Amino acid sequence: MSQADQNRQFRLAKRPEGLPKTSDWDFVTEAVADPGADEILVAVEYISLDPAMRGWMNAGRSYIKPVEIGEVMRAGTVGTVLKSNHSDFAEGDKVSGNFGVQTHAVVAGKEARKVDTSIAPLPSYLGVLGMPGMTAYFGLLDVGGAKDGDTVVVSAASGAVGALVGQIAKLKGCRVVGIAGGAEKCSYVVDELGFDAAIDYKNESVYKGMKQHCPDGIDVFFDNVGGEILDSALANLAFKGRVVICGAISQYNATEGMYAPKNYMSLLVNRARMEGFVVFDYASRYGEGAQAMAGWLSDGKLKHKEDIVEGFENFPDTLLKLFNGSNFGKLVLKV
Amino acid sequence: MSQADQNRQFRLAKRPEGLPKTSDWDFVTEAVADPGADEILVAVEYISLDPAMRGWMNAGRSYIKPVEIGEVMRAGTVGTVLKSNHSDFAEGDKVSGNFGVQTHAVVAGKEARKVDTSIAPLPSYLGVLGMPGMTAYFGLLDVGGAKDGDTVVVSAASGAVGALVGQIAKLKGCRVVGIAGGAEKCSYVVDELGFDAAIDYKNESVYKGMKQHCPDGIDVFFDNVGGEILDSALANLAFKGRVVICGAISQYNATEGMYAPKNYMSLLVNRARMEGFVVFDYASRYGEGAQAMAGWLSDGKLKHKEDIVEGFENFPDTLLKLFNGSNFGKLVLKV
Repeated sequence: MSQADQNRQFRLAKRPEGLPKTSDWDFVTEAVADPGADEILVAVEYISLDPAMRGWMNAGRSYIKPVEIGEVMRAGTVGTVLKSNHSDFAEGDKVSGNFGVQTHAVVAGKEARKVDTSIAPLPSYLGVLGMPGMTAYFGLLDVGGAKDGDTVVVSAASGAVGALVGQIAKLKGCRVVGIAGGAEKCSYVVDELGFDAAIDYKNESVYKGMKQHCPDGIDVFFDNVGGEILDSALANLAFKGRVVICGAISQYNATEGMYAPKNYMSLLVNRARMEGFVVFDYASRYGEGAQAMAGWLSDGKLKHKEDIVEGFENFPDTLLKLFNGSNFGKLVLKV
Repeated sequence: MSQADQNRQFRLAKRPEGLPKTSDWDFVTEAVADPGADEILVAVEYISLDPAMRGWMNAGRSYIKPVEIGEVMRAGTVGTVLKSNHSDFAEGDKVSGNFGVQTHAVVAGKEARKVDTSIAPLPSYLGVLGMPGMTAYFGLLDVGGAKDGDTVVVSAASGAVGALVGQIAKLKGCRVVGIAGGAEKCSYVVDELGFDAAIDYKNESVYKGMKQHCPDGIDVFFDNVGGEILDSALANLAFKGRVVICGAISQYNATEGMYAPKNYMSLLVNRARMEGFVVFDYASRYGEGAQAMAGWLSDGKLKHKEDIVEGFENFPDTLLKLFNGSNFGKLVLKV
């Protein structure tokens, strides 16, 4: 087989305990399949690496069924149509979809969406115009109800979702404070993204930073990390504050149980609410979100940064960058 | 001084650590004062003993300012007007208000509300027609959004608030499961109050009981107790479930920090929310709540039980009944 005939894949070999190890993956090569009726063959070009992937590797249904042992790892992807048996797609079309951690995918046409690379380059459809963008848009505005004058705090502020949450909040007239690890990321969110302040969780007290930068309390806390940072935010909520539970990356590899937020009674004291959400529930409204995001993007009002790592074979190590905080921007694997 | 001239009071002497001790109170006797302009003198007849009182004894502002050292302990009360310098009140009127743990109170007329003992006897204005009634009504329907067909679970189900939450939920067409301690309380909520099922937290697994009695998950969990019971409810939430944080009586005397709910990520998995509330925020809508509750009461649709302990001097010991679960029904001290 030439490389063009080979589909390379990472399949889940074992359910990880703690951080996923190389031995938790099977690297498999098989012949590229031909698309059947109404199917298309896609050459995957970019693979999205997201914190949520860690949860999909665990046994037991969460908000979505787990990836089974032996299955190709689930992932958001973008690529080019190589062959089409579906009337909506032609060879050469750029498409996005959950095609998994593999170099080639045969999928039903209805599982793919065409993307317009005249609006933004292909990897942007895994970030600002993809799931992270929809997550930020609906999580902040719909679940969090952020509005003009609110103080919004977001954790993992330089990450794919956090950077967009903060910028959308600024566009909506909020005061925005980001939490990030290290001086470089903190400078980025303030100087490049226009946040009002940043708190460096690796080098300062998050609790004190919140007290300082949010003297009237936090109206919306958009949480991607969980753990003690969530607890500090609970302790600093404003009256009628809203906590949006988007993720808890600090806890995904915990082997001794999740960190539990001991300040939850602040919800009573402040008549506040904490609410979880999953972006898939907004599928029927993605059009609205994508239009808003594309509009801001073309007006130059949304900055975004992709952290692109090259080489399909680097998938296992690259995924770990999410969990040690060494990625900077939306993490993408280039095939 | 004769007893009629004496105002007996319990004042806060020390901030308790853990359960309030007798030595945390000062028993004080002083002359009954005369009302000034627009004031009334009330003979307190019944004093409401509520879990929230424990929080008011701690230092630091919570949702309401703390009772200061040396102050008469705050409490809801009902009694009879002895003298009136306010045009809205005449001698002999029955009134309710936060007159504190004392036998006589001089208060501004605007701090008192007339009550109608032809609708219900005086102590009911500390229960079903008082704060517990308003708490159950607005907490369940407004914060929890309970509606026809929902599965509602309430903790401290035989208590002042819980018993009403469950009955209102039944009136609204919900399936209702109560959590209470011991066979007698569990029989009461099922056989007397009409709940669909009860879980005896002292003698069975609350988690398994919820699994059994709520096979489709919990739509509304109305929590009065916190701790592991809250965690079990989080683990059993239905899609879009609502957790109403009304109180956490299991934790009020904790000296080593609150129990933290480790299953909070169930909020994300189930797109659920957890929201705190304080009944005082609904003051402008008490009329609506009182009308509904009085209507159900006069139609014989709401049962209520008062646990009335006689003797003003028994206040310190009687309060403790709330925290060891030995009260059965709304706990009231008869002066």
